[in-house]
Amino acid sequence: MTEGFSFEVKARSGDARRGLITTPRGEIPTPAFMPVGTRASVKGVTPEEVGKSGASILLGNTYHLMQRPGENLIREAGGLARFMGWHRPTLTDSGGYQVFSLGDRVKVTDAGVLFSSHIDGSRIELTPERAVLVQSALGSDIAMVLDECPPGTAERDDVRRAMDRTTGWAVRQLAVERTPGQALFGIVQGGIHVGLRLEHLEALRALDFDGLALGGLSVGEPIEEMYKVVSAVAPKMPVEKPRYLMGVGTPEDLLQAIGSGIDMFDCVMPTRNARNGQAFVHGGRINIKQAQYAEDPNPLEPGCTCPCCANYERRYLRHLFCVGEMLVLRLLSIHNLHHYGALTAGARAAIEQGRFSEFAAAWNEPLEIIHEKGQP
Amino acid sequence: MTEGFSFEVKARSGDARRGLITTPRGEIPTPAFMPVGTRASVKGVTPEEVGKSGASILLGNTYHLMQRPGENLIREAGGLARFMGWHRPTLTDSGGYQVFSLGDRVKVTDAGVLFSSHIDGSRIELTPERAVLVQSALGSDIAMVLDECPPGTAERDDVRRAMDRTTGWAVRQLAVERTPGQALFGIVQGGIHVGLRLEHLEALRALDFDGLALGGLSVGEPIEEMYKVVSAVAPKMPVEKPRYLMGVGTPEDLLQAIGSGIDMFDCVMPTRNARNGQAFVHGGRINIKQAQYAEDPNPLEPGCTCPCCANYERRYLRHLFCVGEMLVLRLLSIHNLHHYGALTAGARAAIEQGRFSEFAAAWNEPLEIIHEKGQP
Repeated sequence: MTEGFSFEVKARSGDARRGLITTPRGEIPTPAFMPVGTRASVKGVTPEEVGKSGASILLGNTYHLMQRPGENLIREAGGLARFMGWHRPTLTDSGGYQVFSLGDRVKVTDAGVLFSSHIDGSRIELTPERAVLVQSALGSDIAMVLDECPPGTAERDDVRRAMDRTTGWAVRQLAVERTPGQALFGIVQGGIHVGLRLEHLEALRALDFDGLALGGLSVGEPIEEMYKVVSAVAPKMPVEKPRYLMGVGTPEDLLQAIGSGIDMFDCVMPTRNARNGQAFVHGGRINIKQAQYAEDPNPLEPGCTCPCCANYERRYLRHLFCVGEMLVLRLLSIHNLHHYGALTAGARAAIEQGRFSEFAAAWNEPLEIIHEKGQP
Repeated sequence: MTEGFSFEVKARSGDARRGLITTPRGEIPTPAFMPVGTRASVKGVTPEEVGKSGASILLGNTYHLMQRPGENLIREAGGLARFMGWHRPTLTDSGGYQVFSLGDRVKVTDAGVLFSSHIDGSRIELTPERAVLVQSALGSDIAMVLDECPPGTAERDDVRRAMDRTTGWAVRQLAVERTPGQALFGIVQGGIHVGLRLEHLEALRALDFDGLALGGLSVGEPIEEMYKVVSAVAPKMPVEKPRYLMGVGTPEDLLQAIGSGIDMFDCVMPTRNARNGQAFVHGGRINIKQAQYAEDPNPLEPGCTCPCCANYERRYLRHLFCVGEMLVLRLLSIHNLHHYGALTAGARAAIEQGRFSEFAAAWNEPLEIIHEKGQP
């Protein structure tokens, strides 16, 4: 374990866990959702607003940050958190996921990956060692190993090859010195093959990671396949380490995975969907563009206490969206982040009370009914 | 005078006035700067943030609002202020300025103006009477008369014809019943011709307006011409009514005009320039895009207490601008609105102390020096 980093499970409800991660920069109660600040900004939203949504950690993307503004500028500025005015923990990914999504523009060998930037076409090499060094410069509280991410459509043999390479890279990366207090998480690959996943989990279990993640899910596979893998693998992950399901997901995905014992999540959905006009509400989603809201005096979600719902009506939000006023992107983002913040806060409280499955079952009822029942 | 609306001059410093406008929705200390919320939103900024910048009133554009979302929706929502979550006074223009900027797409007769919308090309008629009725539906605290705005390049004879038509329209508009408590301001035209301006002022002085504005300035004429007109005409405007210089301007313009006795201003500059990366600072302007700020750990303006300067460094703001993160547009807008808010607040304090000209002379010194001197 990295000095200054610790994890404790405080309560359980079935396989679901209520935990606490401690980092030098602050505590992270789990289950935790990490809003995504790809380029050192959660789009349209200030760090203060992110914090008020209930998030205690956010994620930055190494692929983007190493190119603009570059990891050295961020190190000079005191690290990612300080650079962006977020005075709490951060997690950085390794850049691998974005690199592998470049398709033809990436070449992978045992040495690492060579890719041409989507920004200016320049050739960039990302070795496992460099992925750690860049994240060390970014100064995140939790760094992620560089892993090979095969496409969701990959054959079992290709998945195994990627998995074995990921293990080899993992060993090399643990040997690289990081900035003091920075934890390093390993990533379990294996696609939708439970057997491969468990095999890879065993390989990584022996290594001295501070936490383990499930990578390569929510990449186009049927949702049942993802649930099958998570429910089969998550409960078998080390009990004493945080378990992180990368890039997931919808509120339903979070509830499913928390029920299987996952502790951490990140996803662009709350902010990206907001920018498309979509708001997460209990019982579904609404799109504020729709004509049915043109004269609707209700808040985005009746009963919600977020700053958007407390101050603005649907007819106003729809007007802003229809005329292209950027304020609405911010307001919907804030609402959606609150929705995810309320989900994880509610899950934590329910696990403490030993009734997580009831909480999960009730989540999709309209908010008034949830309030009546006294749910968190 | 409209019932519920009043104006009082509290102090003078030379021609500069420290006043107080009272409306049913709240008080407006003057000199006052009105941020522009064209389409019921000050771009990127919440009403709460606008208020914290020091503004006590904001402006909505009738031309835009009557088309989207339409004045009836806004009336249904309780008026412009309530619709947008701004619980303080608002002023609406008449739509004339935007209509006349449509050029070939507008036809003007004594009856009113007929134009084709810039949005969908539909033909819309705006008579003087309708301009009042629409603003009555919008429910602003201060409505403006529809006036004819000749281009800045217009000949003296054309300016006089527009002026005379504006007078005729003004009389017709005073006869239209407005929503209770809504004040109506007249607009003095006359281009850059001081003689015409004074003549038009005399014509409007006799009418029962709650305030008078100078329109048709800052429309492309040399800055000296505008200063000449303002300094010659403003001191002769009725002392007992608010004086409003429309669509102006830079911080320097405001200081000049306040010195001539102007009480109210509106302008898109603080927010529009912010969206181009430009920040107003004491002693000039800076553009955050510039490479010189790439590694600059200073706030946008050292010494400034606005939320942008309190929390973010130039190197971070520049990064956000260069990668296209919308958060920076909001942060720069907040800073610029604070700059205008500080200017008007400082002017009010200086007028009370009888030293407005010293205040105006000191405004362009760097902020540290202003602080040292104990300026407001």
